Amino acid sequence: MHRFASELFPICRSITGDGVRETLSRIGALIPIQVTDVPTGTRTFDWTVPREWNIRDAYIKDPSGQKIVEFKDSSLHVMSYSTPVKGMVSLQELKQHLHTLPERPDWIPYRTSYYKEDWGFCLRHSEMESLQDGLYEVCIDSTLKDGSLTYGECLIAGQSVDEVLISTHVCHPALANDNLSGMVIATALAQHLSSLKLRYSYRFVFIPGTIGAITWLARNQSRTGKIKHGLVLTGIGNRAPFHYKKSRRGDAEIDSAAGLVLRSGSEPYEILDFTPYGYDERQYCSPGFNLPVGCLMRSVWGTFPEYHTSADNLDFIAPDTLEGSLKLCASILDILEHNETLLNTNPYCEPQLGKRNLYRSTGGASISDEINARLWVLNFSDGQHSLLDIAERSGLSFKLINQAAADLKTGGLLIAA
Amino acid sequence: MHRFASELFPICRSITGDGVRETLSRIGALIPIQVTDVPTGTRTFDWTVPREWNIRDAYIKDPSGQKIVEFKDSSLHVMSYSTPVKGMVSLQELKQHLHTLPERPDWIPYRTSYYKEDWGFCLRHSEMESLQDGLYEVCIDSTLKDGSLTYGECLIAGQSVDEVLISTHVCHPALANDNLSGMVIATALAQHLSSLKLRYSYRFVFIPGTIGAITWLARNQSRTGKIKHGLVLTGIGNRAPFHYKKSRRGDAEIDSAAGLVLRSGSEPYEILDFTPYGYDERQYCSPGFNLPVGCLMRSVWGTFPEYHTSADNLDFIAPDTLEGSLKLCASILDILEHNETLLNTNPYCEPQLGKRNLYRSTGGASISDEINARLWVLNFSDGQHSLLDIAERSGLSFKLINQAAADLKTGGLLIAA
Amino acid sequence: MHRFASELFPICRSITGDGVRETLSRIGALIPIQVTDVPTGTRTFDWTVPREWNIRDAYIKDPSGQKIVEFKDSSLHVMSYSTPVKGMVSLQELKQHLHTLPERPDWIPYRTSYYKEDWGFCLRHSEMESLQDGLYEVCIDSTLKDGSLTYGECLIAGQSVDEVLISTHVCHPALANDNLSGMVIATALAQHLSSLKLRYSYRFVFIPGTIGAITWLARNQSRTGKIKHGLVLTGIGNRAPFHYKKSRRGDAEIDSAAGLVLRSGSEPYEILDFTPYGYDERQYCSPGFNLPVGCLMRSVWGTFPEYHTSADNLDFIAPDTLEGSLKLCASILDILEHNETLLNTNPYCEPQLGKRNLYRSTGGASISDEINARLWVLNFSDGQHSLLDIAERSGLSFKLINQAAADLKTGGLLIAA
Repeated sequence: MHRFASELFPICRSITGDGVRETLSRIGALIPIQVTDVPTGTRTFDWTVPREWNIRDAYIKDPSGQKIVEFKDSSLHVMSYSTPVKGMVSLQELKQHLHTLPERPDWIPYRTSYYKEDWGFCLRHSEMESLQDGLYEVCIDSTLKDGSLTYGECLIAGQSVDEVLISTHVCHPALANDNLSGMVIATALAQHLSSLKLRYSYRFVFIPGTIGAITWLARNQSRTGKIKHGLVLTGIGNRAPFHYKKSRRGDAEIDSAAGLVLRSGSEPYEILDFTPYGYDERQYCSPGFNLPVGCLMRSVWGTFPEYHTSADNLDFIAPDTLEGSLKLCASILDILEHNETLLNTNPYCEPQLGKRNLYRSTGGASISDEINARLWVLNFSDGQHSLLDIAERSGLSFKLINQAAADLKTGGLLIAA
Repeated sequence: MHRFASELFPICRSITGDGVRETLSRIGALIPIQVTDVPTGTRTFDWTVPREWNIRDAYIKDPSGQKIVEFKDSSLHVMSYSTPVKGMVSLQELKQHLHTLPERPDWIPYRTSYYKEDWGFCLRHSEMESLQDGLYEVCIDSTLKDGSLTYGECLIAGQSVDEVLISTHVCHPALANDNLSGMVIATALAQHLSSLKLRYSYRFVFIPGTIGAITWLARNQSRTGKIKHGLVLTGIGNRAPFHYKKSRRGDAEIDSAAGLVLRSGSEPYEILDFTPYGYDERQYCSPGFNLPVGCLMRSVWGTFPEYHTSADNLDFIAPDTLEGSLKLCASILDILEHNETLLNTNPYCEPQLGKRNLYRSTGGASISDEINARLWVLNFSDGQHSLLDIAERSGLSFKLINQAAADLKTGGLLIAA
Repeated sequence: MHRFASELFPICRSITGDGVRETLSRIGALIPIQVTDVPTGTRTFDWTVPREWNIRDAYIKDPSGQKIVEFKDSSLHVMSYSTPVKGMVSLQELKQHLHTLPERPDWIPYRTSYYKEDWGFCLRHSEMESLQDGLYEVCIDSTLKDGSLTYGECLIAGQSVDEVLISTHVCHPALANDNLSGMVIATALAQHLSSLKLRYSYRFVFIPGTIGAITWLARNQSRTGKIKHGLVLTGIGNRAPFHYKKSRRGDAEIDSAAGLVLRSGSEPYEILDFTPYGYDERQYCSPGFNLPVGCLMRSVWGTFPEYHTSADNLDFIAPDTLEGSLKLCASILDILEHNETLLNTNPYCEPQLGKRNLYRSTGGASISDEINARLWVLNFSDGQHSLLDIAERSGLSFKLINQAAADLKTGGLLIAA
């Protein structure tokens, strides 16, 4: 996954344009991707698909004619959606278009101006400080023209048409944790699921943030009823405790499943209540949709210094943390795949497990976790408690509870509720 | 407020009599007061309005003829509702009518005997200890005759006939915190509200404790449905953390509003669950009424040593603490005035705030509290959450949330639910 | 109680057989017991009543002919339900039938093999370690034949046919805490209740664990609706904090009553959520029945080293701890006897307690707990709160609350809801 992130890193992505197409094409080499182009001007709820932005080159030359800022060095150097510009400007005028981080003088910030026509360069504060008076040549060779917004979908069909939505944004340029981590983990997760026999169908959406999610929802509004669970993946590659932000509902099955996996694991974590600011869960959890979609991260947007700066580079994420995140996702989905609500066919007193070889034969000492799990599943399979509920209440792992349910089904002691 | 408290301090108040009338007259000089006299013998639920008590003078003369206890020095010296007495008694007999505080030998206690005919003097324990054997002259020049119970009301009309009830007891004599503080803050609050454009009508009731509240409720039973919120103000002038005692309902809007203001403030505070002992919230929150009325205090009755003693004097309350209490009340009422439940007109995905100048134009850095408040209001204005609910859940101040709602209404994004 | 436990200690009990009959006969000498024999082969839900097991003698002789393990020394030496055996076996073969506790080399474990035909001896690990190679004579003079499962019931009739179930298992041999403690406390509790005028009828069931409870439930399924509250008593004689395991419902009246008594007491305690493993609450709280039955213990099964070993002997329980447990049971039942939901006949404002001699006559100082309890009962007797609810909410003892209710009923201020 880290290698794939390195491959995607140099591509200049924005909310529209060839960078997104190129990114989707690379992902499409690994998993089946259906790409959709939505024309500029399309109404999507309260929004309108903007013009498409593309950029070929950009630089600033100092009074001596030396290039001091070059787009080729980092796509972060140009404010995303900068309008084309070419000409000579004074230092004073130039500074009105420069973005720096005074408190982190060696990092380049990431800035955008999607909906207000403007141009700008982002650079190290230390570099800006060293600029001398004089005339500077600025060049942004970009285009902002009617075109389209592009997103990709990968559907992995399961037995049911009910879907699990995995959403990740593909609009950020050379930022590794935000959000190459989300893209590569979503890709790997899709590969992993393709090898399994699945109950749910899984829809992976690779979309530009905000406008992409809104556009996707606008085009798929009638189908959102099929979405039974969902996860937004973002900022999930760095070395930091997991953070799971609950869906707006707060008690969705995905919330319970994520909570159980995090509690059962050995890594530190925090579970956050829903807030309306964040990533595309903002749209999925808008009050009209209110979908059961949570957001899985390591570091939370805006809370770590590297956020939206050049320090969120390929060194900021690591193969083992990406791997750990992938496993966590797989464990959460594994619960969703196997969770069900069952009925004890023998609800009056315990059934005799011993005659079905589901108990120990010598009494007197304590019982094993396996037997204990069977007792939990039997006692609470009253049609009101799912296996996930039982795992939460018992403090036993979902694996144990699920195995107990399988053994009891085989023994004829459980049926579908 | 402290000056007004000083003016009211010497007046000898009880649950009936000229002291209450004089107090209401002084308050009436500052705010419009409608005074009601309810005749002795009137049935009020399970109670009967008692005879009216008035007192002109009282003293004890020691065997040498020297006045050792004088009503003129402090109205606390005479047990409230003492029957008239004049004569000579032995020290032994006298002591059966003396009330002191052995653990606080220099303080005079406050005692009453409203419903059992008796007479008594309250004095410093140190003084009682020094009394020599001999005959003492006792004189209580009081009357206990048919008359009336008196209370005052001040109605500040707002747009709605729905009322906010502010209740404070006016029956205690020379005790500053309990309850001159309540009287002067209620008066100042009425003055403050008179200068505002109000949504609710505000009814201030200045009543004798217990029997006064019961009498008021008995005479206004059919109108209590109009009371949407209420506060009992008492013991709110001394230097101690705020204590808010919740209504019997426990989840009334007044409970949330008081909790939010206290949590947002910088002063220490405690929030108490409802208990059936206390001040007149006992009556407003009796099970038949169960009105949404809380009780705002600084020190809680019975929990501070100065309670119901001569140490609860004008030095025990302070101008700045009274001022702080007034501001707190005003802030709570300000929430009630502005709280409402709204509907997001654009519930599917976020509306585009930028085109309405309600978002920032350059993306990449964190958003301001103002924008965050707008996202909270939009996401939770689903007809189920009031602005107060949203403020509680978001951890943002009511002011920010309310301003966000105003901005969003202007932008056409919110309507009344 | 400790003396009675000593009397019952030597009797060899199992889930069937003469040991149970003898035990019930001894209990029957103290309280009226109705004994039921259910024939081998009877179907009881998913189970079948097993053959009856009896044992007269058992021993192991070492190669020198010396008896090294003797049933007469301790009934624990023979695995319960051991099939008869007589013959010579090598040490190697013998060891396959020996049960020891390596981590407690001087204690004899307690083992059973009810449903798998087998034979075995239980002995000290230190003894087993010292055995030399050679031929050993083993003898178990037992019978496993059609017969019956025996249980006893003691019904103490009260005014109502509604029942409180007290269940305790009688199948364990020479183990004092588990469960002679339960048997002797149940017996003493029945004696105590016999002397009282009772509201509920009390059904004590003395049953073999698991199969006994299942058999009893199978034969009384239609009558379980009468069971309004229940307690399983077990492991309740040793010197350890009380543990109350809640019913599966979690909010049953028995759960509240036990919690209140434990919180009001001076002894340490812990309250446990329901789990499906344990004693016969497993059957009473199976999902089909879901009866309001909790389990009262001192030490919890399986959590103390003496559990199911010869160290759970008569020294492990003590007269004073048994006495404390009995008192606790009696206090819990006393709440159930007196708990009721009442209606304040005067719900609008407080009634005038003073004229009914239910208040103090001199005002000003704090009120007593007695008066406070009356205010709590009046305020919350709205038909929604029982006296137990009011005690819980007020933090006052049930005794105070119940006395307040009695006083208020006498004063005509409360009636049945």
